Parts: sequence; C-alpha cells; structure tokens
Amino acid sequence: MSQQPPISDLDLRRATMCQLLHWLAAERVQPQTLAEVYQEAIERINPQLNAYVSLSPAMLQEQALAAQHRRRDGVIGRLDGLPVALKDNFDIAGWPTHAGLAGRLKPVTEDAHVVARLRASGALLVGKTNMDEGALGAVTDNPHYGPTHNPHRHGYTAGGSSGGAAAAVAAGLAVAAVGSDSLGSIRIPASYCGVYAIKPTHGEISARGVVPAARRLDTVGLLARSADDLTVLLQVLAGYDADDARSRRRRVALSPPDWEPGKLRAGLLPNLAGLGVQPEVIEVFEATLAKWPRELGERRTVDFSDWDFARTRRAGLLLMEAEMLGTFADDLADTDHRVSEHFRRLLGYAAAKTAADYAAADRVLDAATLKMRRLFAQIDVLVLPTTPQGAFPLDGPVPDSQADLTSFASLAGCPAVSIPMGYLPNGMPIGLQLVGARGSDLRLLELASVCASTLDVEPAYPAIA
Amino acid sequence: MSQQPPISDLDLRRATMCQLLHWLAAERVQPQTLAEVYQEAIERINPQLNAYVSLSPAMLQEQALAAQHRRRDGVIGRLDGLPVALKDNFDIAGWPTHAGLAGRLKPVTEDAHVVARLRASGALLVGKTNMDEGALGAVTDNPHYGPTHNPHRHGYTAGGSSGGAAAAVAAGLAVAAVGSDSLGSIRIPASYCGVYAIKPTHGEISARGVVPAARRLDTVGLLARSADDLTVLLQVLAGYDADDARSRRRRVALSPPDWEPGKLRAGLLPNLAGLGVQPEVIEVFEATLAKWPRELGERRTVDFSDWDFARTRRAGLLLMEAEMLGTFADDLADTDHRVSEHFRRLLGYAAAKTAADYAAADRVLDAATLKMRRLFAQIDVLVLPTTPQGAFPLDGPVPDSQADLTSFASLAGCPAVSIPMGYLPNGMPIGLQLVGARGSDLRLLELASVCASTLDVEPAYPAIA
Repeated sequence: MSQQPPISDLDLRRATMCQLLHWLAAERVQPQTLAEVYQEAIERINPQLNAYVSLSPAMLQEQALAAQHRRRDGVIGRLDGLPVALKDNFDIAGWPTHAGLAGRLKPVTEDAHVVARLRASGALLVGKTNMDEGALGAVTDNPHYGPTHNPHRHGYTAGGSSGGAAAAVAAGLAVAAVGSDSLGSIRIPASYCGVYAIKPTHGEISARGVVPAARRLDTVGLLARSADDLTVLLQVLAGYDADDARSRRRRVALSPPDWEPGKLRAGLLPNLAGLGVQPEVIEVFEATLAKWPRELGERRTVDFSDWDFARTRRAGLLLMEAEMLGTFADDLADTDHRVSEHFRRLLGYAAAKTAADYAAADRVLDAATLKMRRLFAQIDVLVLPTTPQGAFPLDGPVPDSQADLTSFASLAGCPAVSIPMGYLPNGMPIGLQLVGARGSDLRLLELASVCASTLDVEPAYPAIA
Repeated sequence: MSQQPPISDLDLRRATMCQLLHWLAAERVQPQTLAEVYQEAIERINPQLNAYVSLSPAMLQEQALAAQHRRRDGVIGRLDGLPVALKDNFDIAGWPTHAGLAGRLKPVTEDAHVVARLRASGALLVGKTNMDEGALGAVTDNPHYGPTHNPHRHGYTAGGSSGGAAAAVAAGLAVAAVGSDSLGSIRIPASYCGVYAIKPTHGEISARGVVPAARRLDTVGLLARSADDLTVLLQVLAGYDADDARSRRRRVALSPPDWEPGKLRAGLLPNLAGLGVQPEVIEVFEATLAKWPRELGERRTVDFSDWDFARTRRAGLLLMEAEMLGTFADDLADTDHRVSEHFRRLLGYAAAKTAADYAAADRVLDAATLKMRRLFAQIDVLVLPTTPQGAFPLDGPVPDSQADLTSFASLAGCPAVSIPMGYLPNGMPIGLQLVGARGSDLRLLELASVCASTLDVEPAYPAIA
C-alpha cells in the first residue's frame, strides 16, 4: 500500500504516541503488528525489568483484532490501537487489583473510570505495572512482586510509586501509561526513567476505581514519550465524573491555551542546594535554563523560606497512612502475609495519631494551598528539578527528600509536568518540573512542548533494546 | 422633603431590607434615624432577649454619621445605612472574637472577609450576637453568656448555633445578620425564629476571619426578612477569596437564574414521620405544599432509605470536634474556665478518636456528596421541613434530631434556603427548606421568593414590640 520502507520494531517501540497515531493512520503499521511487537518485547525484556506484574497476551491480541476491525470499518477512537499500560491500583474488570499488596486474587467486576475511557477510545490495555506496596513509597522495590529495575541501569530504582509504569514507557513496553500521583508518584519515576509525565489539576481526571491513598491528594496521572502525547491523553481522559466525589467540573476548557511565548513570568527557587538538591542535578538544571533565553519569559526568584518541607511531607503522609488504615483494613486484618511488616509499620505511625492530628495535617494542606495560590498571583509557572536526585541503587539507602520538590503541587492540587532535561554524570536521566496554577494544565503542556523541542534529549536505552 | 406620613419605628424595625433601601433612597428615612431606632430597641429589648453579646453604640453612631455623609455626597454602597448583626465568631477589627467561649478578651486586628465587604458596601455593624459555645450545638443556651430567648416566646430556644443572629432579625434588632452554618447553624434558628435564611454553596462566601469549626463544612450564611433580601446580601458578599483555601471560583454567575416557574422537578421525602419529623410539623408542611399547585412543578418522591442519619451526623460532628481541639487548643489548655465542662466533654469524644476514624468520617462525607449529586440529576430542588420540630423550652430536653434535615446540604456542600412556612399549634414558627445542587443558590432564592409570596406568613412578635 505504501512505497515507504517498513518501520523497524525498535522504531515502533521508541516512537511517540503522536507518531504511532500517524503511522497507524497512514497504514504504515497495523494495530495487530503493533501489539505483536510490544508483546514480543515484553516477553523478552520484562523478566529482567519487572515493569509488569500482570499480563494477558490473549486479551491484548483480542483487543488488537477488534482495533483492526474498527480500522477496517473506519470507526476509530482517538487512541485507537495504541498499547497503554496501567498501574496495578486501577480496576480492570476481570482482573484482581493488587495495589502492590499480595493475596488479592479476587477479580473486580467494574472498570475504573479511566480504564473505561481508554477502552472507549480504542486503546489497547497491555497489562498492569508494578508499584510500591499500597502506593506508599517512591522506589518500587515491592516485597511481594520484587523490584522494578530502571531501564537505564539494572539494579537501579525506577522510582515510585508508579515505577513499573514509568519503566514500561521508558523501555518501549508501552507507548504510554496511566498511574496515580499523591505526592509525586508519577513524576518521581518519570524523572528517574527519563520520560514525560503530567500530574493534572486535582479532580481533572476521575479517580473512581483507583485504590484510594489520600482522596484529597490522589490524582490520576499520565506518562508518555512527549509533551504532545500527554496533551492528547489528557484531552481523552479528563472530564467531570458525577460518581467521583472529588471530581471537578473543569474551569479551564480543554481547548487551545492562552499562553504567549516569551511573555511568561517564571518562578525560580533561590537556593536549590539548601533544599537538598544534589550538585549534579543543579548543574544540569542550570545548563537547561541557559538553553531557554526566551522561552521562560521574565524570571523571578520566589520565596519558599516559610515552607517547612519536613512538616508538609509529614502532613501529606499522615493523610495517606490514616486513610490506608481504612482502605486496607481487610488486608491488615489478614494474617496471611498480604501486607509486609514494613508496610504495617508505616501505617502503624498513623494508628498512633488522633483525629485532631489529622485535622491539623489537613490544615497544613490548606496553608499549602494558600501559599501556592499567592505564588501564582506573582508568577505563571514554577520551574524546578522534578527530584533532588537521580535514580539510586536498589540496594542503597533511600533518600528522605524524594518527594520534596513534587509535593508542592500535590498539596495544593496544582498541575505539574515533568520533562526529561538531560543526564547526570553517571548516565542516569533527570527531570525538570513545570508547576502551574490549578486549571493551567494545557498551558503547562504547551510550554513543556516548546521547551523540550530546544533540548533534544536523546533517549538512550542501552540495556533494554 | 416628602409629603408622605412618617414611618413608625415599629415599621422601620419590621421592614425588609429591600423596603428599607427603598425608604432610604426616597429619603423617607435617614441612616442616623434608622440607627437610633434600632439602638433604642436594642437597649430596651436585648436585656430580656439576650440576642447580642457585644455592642458598641458609639461605633454604630459613627458609622451612621459616615453613611449620612456618603448619602449627602451621593456615593453610596449597595447596603448603605442598613443595620446588620454579626455572629460572635466573625472577626471585627478592634473587638475580641469570643466564638461563644469566655475569657477571650484580646481584640483582633483584622476584619473577617465578610466584615470588610459589609463595611465596603456601607452596612452598619450593630454588634455581635450570641451563639452556642464554639458553635457546637443548636440551642444557644451559652454557659458564659446565658441563653438567647426566642422572640416568639420567652423561655424557648432561638435555635443555634446562630441563635442570637436569628433572634436579632426576628425581633427587629437588625434588618439582617451574618452567621455560620456547618450542619444547620443558620437554618435551624431561622426555622425556630420565623426568618429567612440561606446557607450558600460551600465556598461561595469566604470564611476567612471566621473561627473554624470544620473547614469542609463551614459556610458563611445569611439571615433576613425576605428571600429577596437574601439575594441582595448574597450578591454583595459572595466572591472568590484567594486567601481562603476553601473559597471557590463561582461556577454559576451571580446573574438572573435560569429557573422557569412550573417546570421544576421537586423532590419530596416519602416518610417524614419515619425520619422523626413531628406530626404537627408535617401538618404545616403538607398544608404549605397544597398552596403550591404549580410553583413546585412536577413532584417526585426521592429515596433516602440508604441515608444513615445517625452515622452522617456523627461523621460531621467528628470533623467539627476534632478540628476544634486544634482551634481551641489554647482555651482548652487554660484552666481559667474559658470553656465549660460540657464543651470539654463534647471535644473529649474526638480526643479518643484516631486519625483513621477521621479519614473514615471524611469518606462518609464523600459518600454523602455523591448521594446528593445523583439526587440532583433526578430533581431540581429538594423540599422538606427545615427542622423536625419547632422551638422547645430552654429548660426541657434537647432533641438529637435538630440538624438531621439540614445536614444533607451541609455534608454535600449544597445551598439551602429556609423560609417561614407557618406556625405550629403552640404558636411557634416553623421553616421550610429548599435544597439545590451546588451553584444553584440564586435559583433557589428566586423559587423561595415566588413560593413565599403565596404563603403570606404574617410575622407575629407579641412579646418583643
């Protein structure tokens, strides 16, 4: 049908979603071929990587066939034929939802809201990805399912809690993935694995059918290989869901945003080293800023000296832990090792806390919301590294500060985009974060797209081809 | 200046706000006269009624003089010259904010958001009104400031927690009042005292500068002598406040609503008696509905059989009590009887509760939100009595169910309007409540205005003229 040379399997696995949509539309690749290429790669690579914990090749094949028929009939959805991964805290009807715990074998009966939307848009559900136990953590070294390795280096963390999802996208085992982000669970692994991610405005995508961590913070987030891919995904998945109490009616239409390049006010933190950001991360960050003489518009130093990182982190964690005592009550009551001793210990922290402690933590979040609101009266976008450090060895110590730079946006319900900004001296990728006011999701993505185009960060996956 | 006969003092005290605005505009009354009439009545009546706990005749006089000057200069605000009362949990710069506790003598330095808006609109701040201790209760029998009596009968409760505010409006000691409503604290006293009230959509009016009870529920509410008065007040006071974390950007513009008389779907509860509503209240309610053959449009019976009143009430109260342990920490630590033993005991309930209990209660509120959302997909307005009973003797037992019919709207953040629907056989007034979906505030008020005009409930204040 086409005179052009066939596209290599590796190209199909490294392409952006928008590129794949183009190739599919031009009939240079068929959904079934795409599914086969991804399935073959998963079978070969996942045993070492451990990005997926549940797979169903038969289901994938069936979906690909249906996509093929839709394409033949000319009735296709916006994500038709694209292989997408889901974190294992999203319900897929007929599958158990483990949420990183063991022994939850009973299949659920209903799709999560997002899963239903993905199906309706024609996406192919590849499988469910590994995560920290109960989504509490940022390493994805799961006591029941083992660690997910970083596609850039075996033995290194992929970050978490959506570590499997980020690794799958980085390793070309899914073109995009859907995860959850309560304090940074999408953006941290995106930073460590060198992929693009967005944690949208809280409530923008329904969290119905996602195992709750802390409803005030829980946000469905997206991982992909470009900012434009995230824009397409967000437009398909965002929307009001009357059946999710935290779902919000969009204030900003999902339509072309109002950003005028060069006319932004970009906020920068004055003292990254003082916040515990590693020197080599600061170096890459500053080199990146130097490449954007106009893109960021006017630069303003913002004051975060009154932001108590330890206190806000503790407040956010308390909300998660306290709520998990309810969410996982059955698992905790079970003596059959459904939860690890480590997880039990983490939740034990909340078990000793009172209702008044919870109310006080919730007030800390209100204060954080105000801080960010006032900030976005002064600036349009906050620019900072996504994480204070790159991926670290799975057998090494876990830094406390992993979520310090991502939790800003979480506590205040603001959208945040992470883009790969380059590589650290040890060859591991590192992300840059753009945070905006609530509702500015599309504007942030447009800025991310413009900024990323000047960086040209080459994906490098030596170990996983 | 005018050939018309002068308006009697009693007429000035019984007039609606809109009527007073008209008389002021027509120069049939001057702000200073109005202030003097109200001040004289307060001095005469408040000692028996105990609606106000703080007054400043000098400040009132000063404000009235300023209003006089503005009127002379032709630059007046929308509420210019109107005597308005404030519940004593609102900050007025230079006054202490007691919130129903004793010993809080230190004046605050900043006006609450609403107070600043009232000042800017030219309203005269008359004084601060009595309330339940810490706003926890619905009787206004305050251990430190004594009981507020019902203007319709001495020795009967005015309801609460905004009991003083409702009594002041009912007794003609303020043309309108601003209070707070977390589970019914505006609407319950409105029902018992025979005045109009609205608890707006949560976040519609900023709660900055109001002593917090439970931020998720706390709503600034309004008491007045007609539905139209409430509309004017709401339009002046509603708005986004960047400094209140719970303030919301309005989704529904404060502009003419979209209600078409007769084309509504009105929801009615099937079994009021089963919900503990007293027979004589049901009788007045049904007689009222019979007077609205067209006004309510199509009537639909709604199903509330899955609504656990005791459970939702406990959930809402836990949020309040737990948060108050923080809000009133200093007062509780003080041994100088700043709080009563009763209040200490109420908060003691929350002190024994864990963070997980709080999270579970918060989840009950999410479920209530969903229930109400689904309800308002079926109907436009829920119509029910405001309270299951009328005012009861201050020395009698306090019914548990006081807030059962008001808490629906609170838990779900929905707006609710209470209008006087008539009198019980014992001569005490009783209110009818219209509850709508979030953002439908003005629509509810328009409906309330139309419905009330057919009722012609005569105010009757024999004891207080």
